[in-house]
Amino acid sequence: VPIVCLLSDFGTKDHYVGVMKACVLQHCPEAQLVDLTHRVLPHSVSEGSYYLEQSVSHFPTGTVFLAVVDPGVGSSRKAVAVKAGGYFFVAPDNGLVSEVVDELGGLEVGVELAVPSGSSYTFHGRDVFAPAAGRLAAGSEIGSLGAPMAKLVALAGNTKAFRGNQLTVTVLTIDHFGNVIFDFHTRNGWEALVPGKTLRVNDRRVMFGATYSRVLLGESLLLWNSSNLLELAVRNGSAAEVWGLEVGQRVTFKAAP
Amino acid sequence: VPIVCLLSDFGTKDHYVGVMKACVLQHCPEAQLVDLTHRVLPHSVSEGSYYLEQSVSHFPTGTVFLAVVDPGVGSSRKAVAVKAGGYFFVAPDNGLVSEVVDELGGLEVGVELAVPSGSSYTFHGRDVFAPAAGRLAAGSEIGSLGAPMAKLVALAGNTKAFRGNQLTVTVLTIDHFGNVIFDFHTRNGWEALVPGKTLRVNDRRVMFGATYSRVLLGESLLLWNSSNLLELAVRNGSAAEVWGLEVGQRVTFKAAP
Amino acid sequence: VPIVCLLSDFGTKDHYVGVMKACVLQHCPEAQLVDLTHRVLPHSVSEGSYYLEQSVSHFPTGTVFLAVVDPGVGSSRKAVAVKAGGYFFVAPDNGLVSEVVDELGGLEVGVELAVPSGSSYTFHGRDVFAPAAGRLAAGSEIGSLGAPMAKLVALAGNTKAFRGNQLTVTVLTIDHFGNVIFDFHTRNGWEALVPGKTLRVNDRRVMFGATYSRVLLGESLLLWNSSNLLELAVRNGSAAEVWGLEVGQRVTFKAAP
Repeated sequence: VPIVCLLSDFGTKDHYVGVMKACVLQHCPEAQLVDLTHRVLPHSVSEGSYYLEQSVSHFPTGTVFLAVVDPGVGSSRKAVAVKAGGYFFVAPDNGLVSEVVDELGGLEVGVELAVPSGSSYTFHGRDVFAPAAGRLAAGSEIGSLGAPMAKLVALAGNTKAFRGNQLTVTVLTIDHFGNVIFDFHTRNGWEALVPGKTLRVNDRRVMFGATYSRVLLGESLLLWNSSNLLELAVRNGSAAEVWGLEVGQRVTFKAAP
Repeated sequence: VPIVCLLSDFGTKDHYVGVMKACVLQHCPEAQLVDLTHRVLPHSVSEGSYYLEQSVSHFPTGTVFLAVVDPGVGSSRKAVAVKAGGYFFVAPDNGLVSEVVDELGGLEVGVELAVPSGSSYTFHGRDVFAPAAGRLAAGSEIGSLGAPMAKLVALAGNTKAFRGNQLTVTVLTIDHFGNVIFDFHTRNGWEALVPGKTLRVNDRRVMFGATYSRVLLGESLLLWNSSNLLELAVRNGSAAEVWGLEVGQRVTFKAAP
Repeated sequence: VPIVCLLSDFGTKDHYVGVMKACVLQHCPEAQLVDLTHRVLPHSVSEGSYYLEQSVSHFPTGTVFLAVVDPGVGSSRKAVAVKAGGYFFVAPDNGLVSEVVDELGGLEVGVELAVPSGSSYTFHGRDVFAPAAGRLAAGSEIGSLGAPMAKLVALAGNTKAFRGNQLTVTVLTIDHFGNVIFDFHTRNGWEALVPGKTLRVNDRRVMFGATYSRVLLGESLLLWNSSNLLELAVRNGSAAEVWGLEVGQRVTFKAAP
């Protein structure tokens, strides 16, 4: 069964997502359709990229990702279909899929999708991306979908700053529970992050621990989350509210002496 | 693969939509289920009708639309199943599907669904509509689902007013991005809507343009949207907030001299 | 077609639900995936239990319910797979499925799921529950998924209090329309609940009626809802707002003299 996984910033109120699915089903009525999320912050290419990085490797190979966060729709940005690590991606060429493609070992095949005549200026999800995803799901060769291209536009990225016993990182996303997730991975390495050790975060103390059940209700903890990213959580509460943090904000961690 | 597309005002918090799907699957476990939206404004038959009009023709013919926006549930309004333009609609007979059926060339076959004994007074989506949609998806003849009926109740509609160089129209819906969509279609024709021309909207100036990328971040534009409806947008912002507009509001456009 | 029905408190913004589905599809790519809801109040095991009780019997037997409301993730609470009434449940053993299993006649077979090495501390939905649900959907014997267990942890429950002509009950949930649903079932029996009779609710009068269409717009009514639970509604309005009620609140009904 061909799987098509959809991600967008279209939200779930409007008919846009349903219409994209209709256009996939025109080409591949038996597709297994999975929503990754349609609640990416409007126009936030970096949050969309984050969700893809966290998710792609859990899907069976062969899955087609139809990813549309497209603030430049109607401009000269390219529409592309690419293959990497056994997965397919159909997306605008604006950095949305470049990080995950890199992690999968880089672009194997890429094509620039033509914009069919009669397409709207504002809804390439329906007119350009969904039909291409449907054709890939139905077994079309990726090379048949457009002219070859060799390199994706890179994602404009965040930076991590170490200074002595301090680390400054960026809030990548805030999840449904209010957990605050930082752009800092176990592999980035910082010796201060040892279970049981206390750190100062924006000058308040919090322990680096392991599980929610080790702290009392309402207390904070720092942990490596299920994606191996640094996370600030409050047991049965919202860390974003308790700590007053937002997406994009810079936060400083100090190792306690 | 039979496709069943669902629309309702049930929201996504409660179990109602999942239970309707269960009742479809009792009759047709292999159905391809697609959510159009379940976030129609509660009891807004006209917004539900708008979403159907924007979406139906993108689906493969044969699709069964299970549409439930039903403020009159428990009253004497009829429950119906109708065929038009190769599509099927199962819905309350309150104007929800009459506009799209008209656009598809009118009702080909229609039946009034019986209410099974033991049905609840308040959840015909589960007890009446979903089983009928499941049976259609499984291949039942529409004529086997109830007694023939010939005419749908019409949708109570909005009116457009031209006066000299002024046009007054209604806000039909506001999408996830805050774009404001008016009940005015390209085919309604108004010579003032020419790319590059400036109009006054509620006494503020805005240019009728073509694409989001032609204006600066935070600036407004008027455009024909991907559904050929008049839309007021703000690049990377919410026009509904910037302009203070709500669904149902009347807005006046003046051609600038 | 094997059906997997998902319920969680993960919300619909994050990638968590999509990733759980990916892990189901790794074992059973042809599964029919149905979302019951992912908007259970965070950590509210009792609201999750309510949604399951309202829904399970409408699904075809054989359906696998993948239910994750898991405030104790990472603690010593067990992860289980159980069979009851022809349905399968994969869930944390914290009361989430014990009520519905009781209603289905009690546990037929139950196993404790092992936590695979390399599992995260915080996302057993992905690492423990989804793979088990996928294997059940693909036809694995439940006994092959873990060591036998015989008894589920019970759900901590609400109490109903009768006193003379008064009844005090708890707000179980508030639905998308603002209808207030109480923990009081037709089978609990109270002679004051007769159509046409007036009651005092928190000292305001309201009629026990049958359908929304019998009262004027904006007026309140009490009714047995489609799940045979006592419900307070406002025609085309939100009873929760009009009456100022919240989940968990205690409310007193008095039979009018």
